[in-house]
Amino acid sequence: MQQVYSLFMHKLPVGVLGASGYAGRELCALISQHPGLSLAFATANSQAGTTAELPGGERIEFITKEAAPVGDVALVFSALPHGASREWVERARTAGARVVDLSNDLRIGNGSNGVPYGLTEARRDTIRGAELVANPGCYPTAILLALLPLVESGLIAPGATISVAAASGVTGAGLTPRLDLLFGEVTENFRAYGVGNTHRHLNEMRALLAEHGADCDLLFTPHLLPTARGILATITVPVTSVPDDLLGVWRRRYVGERFVEIVDSMPELRHVVHRNTVRISAVAAAHLRQPTLLVFSAIDNLVKGAAGQAVQNANLMLGLEETQGLPA
Amino acid sequence: MQQVYSLFMHKLPVGVLGASGYAGRELCALISQHPGLSLAFATANSQAGTTAELPGGERIEFITKEAAPVGDVALVFSALPHGASREWVERARTAGARVVDLSNDLRIGNGSNGVPYGLTEARRDTIRGAELVANPGCYPTAILLALLPLVESGLIAPGATISVAAASGVTGAGLTPRLDLLFGEVTENFRAYGVGNTHRHLNEMRALLAEHGADCDLLFTPHLLPTARGILATITVPVTSVPDDLLGVWRRRYVGERFVEIVDSMPELRHVVHRNTVRISAVAAAHLRQPTLLVFSAIDNLVKGAAGQAVQNANLMLGLEETQGLPA
Amino acid sequence: MQQVYSLFMHKLPVGVLGASGYAGRELCALISQHPGLSLAFATANSQAGTTAELPGGERIEFITKEAAPVGDVALVFSALPHGASREWVERARTAGARVVDLSNDLRIGNGSNGVPYGLTEARRDTIRGAELVANPGCYPTAILLALLPLVESGLIAPGATISVAAASGVTGAGLTPRLDLLFGEVTENFRAYGVGNTHRHLNEMRALLAEHGADCDLLFTPHLLPTARGILATITVPVTSVPDDLLGVWRRRYVGERFVEIVDSMPELRHVVHRNTVRISAVAAAHLRQPTLLVFSAIDNLVKGAAGQAVQNANLMLGLEETQGLPA
Amino acid sequence: MQQVYSLFMHKLPVGVLGASGYAGRELCALISQHPGLSLAFATANSQAGTTAELPGGERIEFITKEAAPVGDVALVFSALPHGASREWVERARTAGARVVDLSNDLRIGNGSNGVPYGLTEARRDTIRGAELVANPGCYPTAILLALLPLVESGLIAPGATISVAAASGVTGAGLTPRLDLLFGEVTENFRAYGVGNTHRHLNEMRALLAEHGADCDLLFTPHLLPTARGILATITVPVTSVPDDLLGVWRRRYVGERFVEIVDSMPELRHVVHRNTVRISAVAAAHLRQPTLLVFSAIDNLVKGAAGQAVQNANLMLGLEETQGLPA
Repeated sequence: MQQVYSLFMHKLPVGVLGASGYAGRELCALISQHPGLSLAFATANSQAGTTAELPGGERIEFITKEAAPVGDVALVFSALPHGASREWVERARTAGARVVDLSNDLRIGNGSNGVPYGLTEARRDTIRGAELVANPGCYPTAILLALLPLVESGLIAPGATISVAAASGVTGAGLTPRLDLLFGEVTENFRAYGVGNTHRHLNEMRALLAEHGADCDLLFTPHLLPTARGILATITVPVTSVPDDLLGVWRRRYVGERFVEIVDSMPELRHVVHRNTVRISAVAAAHLRQPTLLVFSAIDNLVKGAAGQAVQNANLMLGLEETQGLPA
Repeated sequence: MQQVYSLFMHKLPVGVLGASGYAGRELCALISQHPGLSLAFATANSQAGTTAELPGGERIEFITKEAAPVGDVALVFSALPHGASREWVERARTAGARVVDLSNDLRIGNGSNGVPYGLTEARRDTIRGAELVANPGCYPTAILLALLPLVESGLIAPGATISVAAASGVTGAGLTPRLDLLFGEVTENFRAYGVGNTHRHLNEMRALLAEHGADCDLLFTPHLLPTARGILATITVPVTSVPDDLLGVWRRRYVGERFVEIVDSMPELRHVVHRNTVRISAVAAAHLRQPTLLVFSAIDNLVKGAAGQAVQNANLMLGLEETQGLPA
Repeated sequence: MQQVYSLFMHKLPVGVLGASGYAGRELCALISQHPGLSLAFATANSQAGTTAELPGGERIEFITKEAAPVGDVALVFSALPHGASREWVERARTAGARVVDLSNDLRIGNGSNGVPYGLTEARRDTIRGAELVANPGCYPTAILLALLPLVESGLIAPGATISVAAASGVTGAGLTPRLDLLFGEVTENFRAYGVGNTHRHLNEMRALLAEHGADCDLLFTPHLLPTARGILATITVPVTSVPDDLLGVWRRRYVGERFVEIVDSMPELRHVVHRNTVRISAVAAAHLRQPTLLVFSAIDNLVKGAAGQAVQNANLMLGLEETQGLPA
Repeated sequence: MQQVYSLFMHKLPVGVLGASGYAGRELCALISQHPGLSLAFATANSQAGTTAELPGGERIEFITKEAAPVGDVALVFSALPHGASREWVERARTAGARVVDLSNDLRIGNGSNGVPYGLTEARRDTIRGAELVANPGCYPTAILLALLPLVESGLIAPGATISVAAASGVTGAGLTPRLDLLFGEVTENFRAYGVGNTHRHLNEMRALLAEHGADCDLLFTPHLLPTARGILATITVPVTSVPDDLLGVWRRRYVGERFVEIVDSMPELRHVVHRNTVRISAVAAAHLRQPTLLVFSAIDNLVKGAAGQAVQNANLMLGLEETQGLPA
């Protein structure tokens, strides 16, 4: 029925809670270009009453979340901060709206209580038609989409440690006035952070790998890049053996997927920024006694790693075409 | 006797072959500020007859290497390209000059024939007074100085694979007119290269580790950073156990070293650029069945990773104070 | 009629000569997303036989320009180098194709011989239905669109010197392997070039201003920004008086224009990159004896300053909707 | 007598008020390398009790300014915020210390009450031996040093408007947690700010020009560059005539000056960053009815534009060699 609506140029109204951050702005921009959705409200309590410009030049006006008519929209995106989101997800659900929550609060490994996990290419069946979906973290999106085909094919050496060195642009840290994110501190610099397996995203990744039956440990070391956007994960995976058609492992798993690209060159940030795409490649490491793969996975942290995947999930929840409004 | 010279304000004449590249320019700049050395010539065949400005504002004039009076100087630095350097090293040696070769040609693992390897903090005794030294590669400098204390302390799990994800600024690729190094192609980008253990520096690192008795495999994955300078190596090391005083492993090994800093925060590029310093830290990874360390090592690829270490070695070869003319 | 074609999913075939440079790549990317055009060929003699990836992930295959079926397409875009384009424009015209020439060769002030000048918002009437259009330079697009309303309103002080300090990202210099465009030379740097009124674009701007009856001199000083894209022109204009409704001068002139934004805040590069938009603002300078305006104009040099405006002109030449396929 | 001290390797103790900002950090770094000065204290009330790392790797400990022994040092540098500095300058003067004030509070045009203005190359005589000096702003340093030779030579067209388009790296805005200074907002961006002759530095420049007898108006338009450091000022100057030896105007004025470079190529930021140097060039604009010069001036805003010039002035005030401790 919703498809009928959009056929007749009607658009489904949606709202964004927490619209002034990087993910929230990206959501508003995607919605403003979406053929089947219209932006009914955008909240930002600290900037209520002011307007902001979207990347495409359009302006939106912020209201407080308390003033948001969450019951009058088909779906609410919550891009509220971790910890603050859960309460407003419940309010929106009580008011009858479907919800995509972009925070950490309801993700697998963080007290999800059965909320579907929005890693679309892995969980499409539980997302389609769902009323509430927990959108994955940016790093987990890049890393899990790269690892799942290996887990499912049984190639990972039992008990092995998978080591992930990942790097993200600064928008991954949010639009917050931190001194260490000033241009003068980030340009010409590079550093690891959250080291020693302490990052918030670790539980999420370990929980999903465990659900898929992986018998492995995960070591995750994020780094801060002097770029605005983009994540590149470089993943070292001990395997039982190296298949002749190595990339075939991913190509078979993701056949027909519009937002997954398996390539035989190195994924680069510039290939994926501003796109709702994960780009994956892999090579076998030479000269090692333990057969080992290097897997590379690149996404735009704000699109496939946040707002884009959220719209992809919303499309499925609302019965729209999964690819609608998304820059492939 | 050379110290007597410099005491009386005399400076030892030195020359630079291949002075127009990034390492060559950095060498000329360091020599121009060095209290004990003076720049007698700088060659750059493609720019012979022209002058160039050093970072400090001084100008040098390029001559051809054929015109360089290699026999009239105390020491020649060769920053000629890999493959082209060996011949000129021999010419300079035949003419009686000491030589520091910054190319790959005479390094350990690449046909060194016993030429002392210039990883100063590891091989000071064979460098002091030597007539020819092969200066290490930039990545090996960062990685080997981080790994050697672990090798020497016997902590590395026997037969383990050490996985290195390293990232370098673009000057590491040299001052060459490659399209993929243009600003428009590098800004806001990040990518791996030379993957699958194919990088030129791998033999060098494996050979040195083997000489020090390490029983381990090495997996090395370099990345290109959107920065001008700097290398950060993030090294995953399976160990037999985690010592209580983890950083003590490096602190004890490098006690008294002026150009090594062991820190309990994360090494950042901005802490080491324009300095002849390697900064190292380490943490134990939590929640892994296999005890594993993360070791971080940062250098300026053009200073400690090239020209600075070359001057450090030249100081030792010429009987000067090791730290002379070097920005710590 | 062409609109009927596209309604039935027919697209007009077009070709790109010189498709491997920055403007050529941008053209191919725009065409690949254009609802009414399809890319019939893309030439790049030095890369003939190879493929390249467009920003959206699609791949194109390069052929030589000699092999290009210029007579089989509705329109040819020539992004060949200045000097080399004129000959191929003639070949394509002889073969019956309409042509948009992005080079300098046929622009006003450079031997145009009456070829319509493709500054769309100024010359729409001569562009619509034209068979050949000379697409403006990137700087002239930004500067002339900002100045024309002042010229037409007669506000410029007679005989005054208009001083333009403009800055461009490095893609403005093309995808050429110049050492001074390497990342290591451009990052953290800023410099003027082509100073003293020597830039190739000067004749173009002076000629157009003269055609519109401006009695003024033009001083143009371009600078190289450490960005990939974008031009910001800061224009000092002595005026006879300052109108009460200053921005009204531009708002009235550009009423209804989809690709012109008059704003009361400062135009920034990030507001216009990846968009076919010029953003203009102006303020009066305080405390000067000579009434003086500061006018600011920002564009994406590769979109509104090259490929985007070329498509805008092509749309008019082919009878398509002017805005088709263009990111506003 | 102070020179006797330093001759015997004694160092004069100095202190820094407001040491945690960019200028304060740079001051501490310069002092730590200065052969004649030692850092007795560094204040930063918000970080009192913590330590910070200087660029050279040294660490300093912050105290509150109330705890600073301002009477026990030979000289106090105040890098406190504009408005907050005046009070502490007075306290330090009352306690008997000489003071270099880097704030706006006592500069010419801003209520200086006769405090010597520390534009060293213009006011050396009043600075030497002074007990209090107001250090110039960063933009005024670059612009005034470029303009003074023209003013003194009488070349500027009477009553003319000098138009300055200047661009600065983000450290010019200080180490403050502003959203618009985050890396994600500045990278790949460029914009004017403080337009229409509203910038705080304007009074300072106009007052100094007036004192030197200039009969001209000044139009000043600053821009924010995506760089950490550096200022480039592009200055349009209507003149009565163009001298044959144009650069001779500056060369004669600055003969023997160690920190002024007159060059016949374009000044670039990379030529002056991390140096206490202003680099100036000029060309005549072609094809204008009104003879006009383009003058270019580049400095490091934190060195010659702040901390470096402050040390230069302190050297003169304390009777030390003017160039001591300064990176030319």
